[in-house]
Amino acid sequence: MRIGQGFDAHRFAGDASRRELWLAGLVWPDSGPGIEGDSDGDVAAHALIDALLAAAGLGDIGSLFGVGADAHGAGMHGSAMLRETVAHLRDHGFEPVSASVAIVGNRPKIGPRRAEACEALTAAVGCPVSVTATTTDRMGFTGRGEGIAAVANALVEER
Amino acid sequence: MRIGQGFDAHRFAGDASRRELWLAGLVWPDSGPGIEGDSDGDVAAHALIDALLAAAGLGDIGSLFGVGADAHGAGMHGSAMLRETVAHLRDHGFEPVSASVAIVGNRPKIGPRRAEACEALTAAVGCPVSVTATTTDRMGFTGRGEGIAAVANALVEER
Amino acid sequence: MRIGQGFDAHRFAGDASRRELWLAGLVWPDSGPGIEGDSDGDVAAHALIDALLAAAGLGDIGSLFGVGADAHGAGMHGSAMLRETVAHLRDHGFEPVSASVAIVGNRPKIGPRRAEACEALTAAVGCPVSVTATTTDRMGFTGRGEGIAAVANALVEER
Ligand SMILES: [Zn+2]
Ligand SMILES: [Zn+2]
Ligand SMILES: [Zn+2]
Repeated sequence: MRIGQGFDAHRFAGDASRRELWLAGLVWPDSGPGIEGDSDGDVAAHALIDALLAAAGLGDIGSLFGVGADAHGAGMHGSAMLRETVAHLRDHGFEPVSASVAIVGNRPKIGPRRAEACEALTAAVGCPVSVTATTTDRMGFTGRGEGIAAVANALVEER
Repeated sequence: MRIGQGFDAHRFAGDASRRELWLAGLVWPDSGPGIEGDSDGDVAAHALIDALLAAAGLGDIGSLFGVGADAHGAGMHGSAMLRETVAHLRDHGFEPVSASVAIVGNRPKIGPRRAEACEALTAAVGCPVSVTATTTDRMGFTGRGEGIAAVANALVEER
Repeated sequence: MRIGQGFDAHRFAGDASRRELWLAGLVWPDSGPGIEGDSDGDVAAHALIDALLAAAGLGDIGSLFGVGADAHGAGMHGSAMLRETVAHLRDHGFEPVSASVAIVGNRPKIGPRRAEACEALTAAVGCPVSVTATTTDRMGFTGRGEGIAAVANALVEER
């Protein structure tokens, strides 16, 4: 059994942005502007990807998907990136066992759709994935609504 | 074996507050004003609750205890909330195996009472629970003393 | 199997500083001033130490190495502190199984030397240790380049 830790943070797009808000494998309409990033900015998916790759000793999201507008991961949704990550793990003899992500930010309100988010991420990863959500009481960059962060962990086993 | 990740942050009450400071299942007299929150504001207990619920796939602290002054968890101490969380896990066939929380803030000074804090949390959860503590070198909202944060993880097994 | 969580953050030394930058068990020349701290300021090593000690229920970096310029850990490099931590775990019947650290900061650029960092930390801990790295998109104290943070987890087993 091996353990991995992941973290990610991205800035919210400006109020005038028409960018869709993607998070935890779902699109969140009527929840304000989306998240900046070369991909869809899904910090929950990205933190989980780092946790899974770390657990397997296979680098991180930057080494697998690249960085910048020309990167392999540019324009990809979090769920698709998670599926590719898990395929990469399996190619190297690892199987995800369990994973979890804590989302830190003012919006979107996760609670009413948490079960749906867990289902989307569980389907992408192929093992139980949990989602929790909290704020920072108006403190710091997440509390001021500048951006959103996520911290994740994962267990994998070698086959 | 399943893994969970938890995070929580709360603001310190104002200097004029007579609110008791509760953290890691203990009250800390002579350590300045307490932590804001509908419950006692014990971020260490709350982060552990999210980690335990996430590991078992049973939602998060908001779904179990509610949010706001009328919530089921309003006025509850962290230890009592942890006990109720573990009872909820057992009702669903899960048993806590191990848990850990890292507290980030300027006060209280955890070191001299860390063993006592571990004992209080271990008694509440019914498995070994560890506490570490650090500061952010006067940086960010924790470093400026605006509030306190905690990041936790947990392992549970299905019976 | 027991789990631990660690966190650490330190300030970067001023631009005029000639302090070497040590991180993840390596020295990073041509990456700007080093990190403040009584030891070498290696937040990745320190977060891993807290995660390992927490997993074994053996306190934290402050209780093992002391705090301040006169502390036992003063002037020590992260790798040496990790080796001493693991010796302490073994003295108490624990063996590290797996560990992982997520580094959050603007510099140094980890990617090109991530494999080397994993090797250095793996050699120090004696079990697979992974390193991931990310920024906070110019937000918060890490995004403004004031300092650097790390969050780590670890699994240990009792022999
Ligand atoms: Zn990202
Ligand atoms: Zn709370
Ligand atoms: Zn440190």
